[in-house]
Amino acid sequence: MTRRELVQQIRQKQSFLCIGLDADLDRIPKHLLRTADPLFEFNKQIIDATKDLCVAYKPNLAFYESLGAKGWLSLEKTLRYIPKEHFRIADAKRGDIGNTSRLYAKAFFDTLDFDAVTVAPYMGEDSVKPFLEFEGKWVILLALTSNRGSADFQFAKQDNRVPLYEKVLRKAQEWGSPDNLMFVLGATHPEMFEKIRRIAPEHFLLVPGIGAQGGDLQGVSQFGFNRECGLLVNSSRGIIFAGQEEDFAEKAKEAATKIQQKMAAICKNKFEIKSPKNS
Amino acid sequence: MTRRELVQQIRQKQSFLCIGLDADLDRIPKHLLRTADPLFEFNKQIIDATKDLCVAYKPNLAFYESLGAKGWLSLEKTLRYIPKEHFRIADAKRGDIGNTSRLYAKAFFDTLDFDAVTVAPYMGEDSVKPFLEFEGKWVILLALTSNRGSADFQFAKQDNRVPLYEKVLRKAQEWGSPDNLMFVLGATHPEMFEKIRRIAPEHFLLVPGIGAQGGDLQGVSQFGFNRECGLLVNSSRGIIFAGQEEDFAEKAKEAATKIQQKMAAICKNKFEIKSPKNS
Repeated sequence: MTRRELVQQIRQKQSFLCIGLDADLDRIPKHLLRTADPLFEFNKQIIDATKDLCVAYKPNLAFYESLGAKGWLSLEKTLRYIPKEHFRIADAKRGDIGNTSRLYAKAFFDTLDFDAVTVAPYMGEDSVKPFLEFEGKWVILLALTSNRGSADFQFAKQDNRVPLYEKVLRKAQEWGSPDNLMFVLGATHPEMFEKIRRIAPEHFLLVPGIGAQGGDLQGVSQFGFNRECGLLVNSSRGIIFAGQEEDFAEKAKEAATKIQQKMAAICKNKFEIKSPKNS
Repeated sequence: MTRRELVQQIRQKQSFLCIGLDADLDRIPKHLLRTADPLFEFNKQIIDATKDLCVAYKPNLAFYESLGAKGWLSLEKTLRYIPKEHFRIADAKRGDIGNTSRLYAKAFFDTLDFDAVTVAPYMGEDSVKPFLEFEGKWVILLALTSNRGSADFQFAKQDNRVPLYEKVLRKAQEWGSPDNLMFVLGATHPEMFEKIRRIAPEHFLLVPGIGAQGGDLQGVSQFGFNRECGLLVNSSRGIIFAGQEEDFAEKAKEAATKIQQKMAAICKNKFEIKSPKNS
């Protein structure tokens, strides 16, 4: 999917919501456990209920891998079920030496036909670049994560200059462009997006953390929204586990609708201010 | 597997060789492509030929994931086929927020029964610790990798003090002990192991890079060998792709034997010097 197509979808749906398909066998409604493929059945109903409200779906690979080959089959079926208009993100946090990263890229872009994969930056340029070589595909590079452990290494200043996450933001712009590179930006304080937008004004940012991980949609948008929106804000558990009974999909739709309505108000406001001719 | 059991195996086999099962459909002998499960058939013959010469096997997940669910089935079969005496490493380089890392740990330790998994440190403590909570299982944390891109972030000084890889080595020792934590140490200059042994004297180090990635067995051992050996030196392509014809397993055995013989000489020398009573 191209950046232009993604932005068109955001404008059309008045939403920059990404839904995390973190389908957990221990948390999905009990009646689904009697179906042949509970994870897929769960995802299918979530997708049916929410597809008009979000622009992206993001399965987290851990939830599928934890079930072994069977989990991968559920993932493959889920991916085929997501409508083509949606941006499909493999939240996999991969990264290895060059020839190995190339195989991971093949796994997610060829074998599974994802649009994007999250990648960890620790191993540097040759661990990231193979993912960037796939036409029409995206890397979403971890820069700043929203977990407590992000303080251990990401905030420490490198070479006495900038924090590691900022170095990642700067360095990676030598490898990819706003057309094939996004960043994971889990800032816990919305004001940080002001600084981040000075470093990476054009890149899309994948923001975890409305819902279970905390975070503030209004604040993030205030400082992070650029002329093309430039944000994909993710919610996982807050939507997909909004209900635990047979009406879980309906509850998920309600939860997603609440967020989408807030996003529509933000889009209306921001797009008009930032690019009146295109809105 | 406990540290004691691993060390016993090293002493018994006079080997600290880890064989990387990076089975690549494009590189395995052509006649295997006619079998029902070529990756498994390849691994099976490699394991039969080399099991007395090595103490660990390390499948790299990318090679299996690139084939989707089918690849995971080959991996599951391979893992069941590796003799229980061997240390089994999932080279997966995972790492995510706490509850997600826990699921990855479940994937590799429960669903697949690996002894160890390689983990990326970028997301810090709560991304690593869930892997350390499994009794008898190991984290092998990326510290210094041997690829070119390691220079991008790993060597930069953090907080004006030590390089990032050194901070990882120090910080992670607050999370795990030499009984459940190893490090990936792909030093390109053997002398670096002298410094690394001052920082982490007891921990096992997984060393990639004899064979295709360069590296120097003699030099690494000179500076990295501790009283329990403390090294797992990996070779992948140099062994498993030593031959391309029907006798590939025999060729792999020859390549592994050459390395094991060098290791036996090193073990004889080093164990006698370092702990004469136990050797």
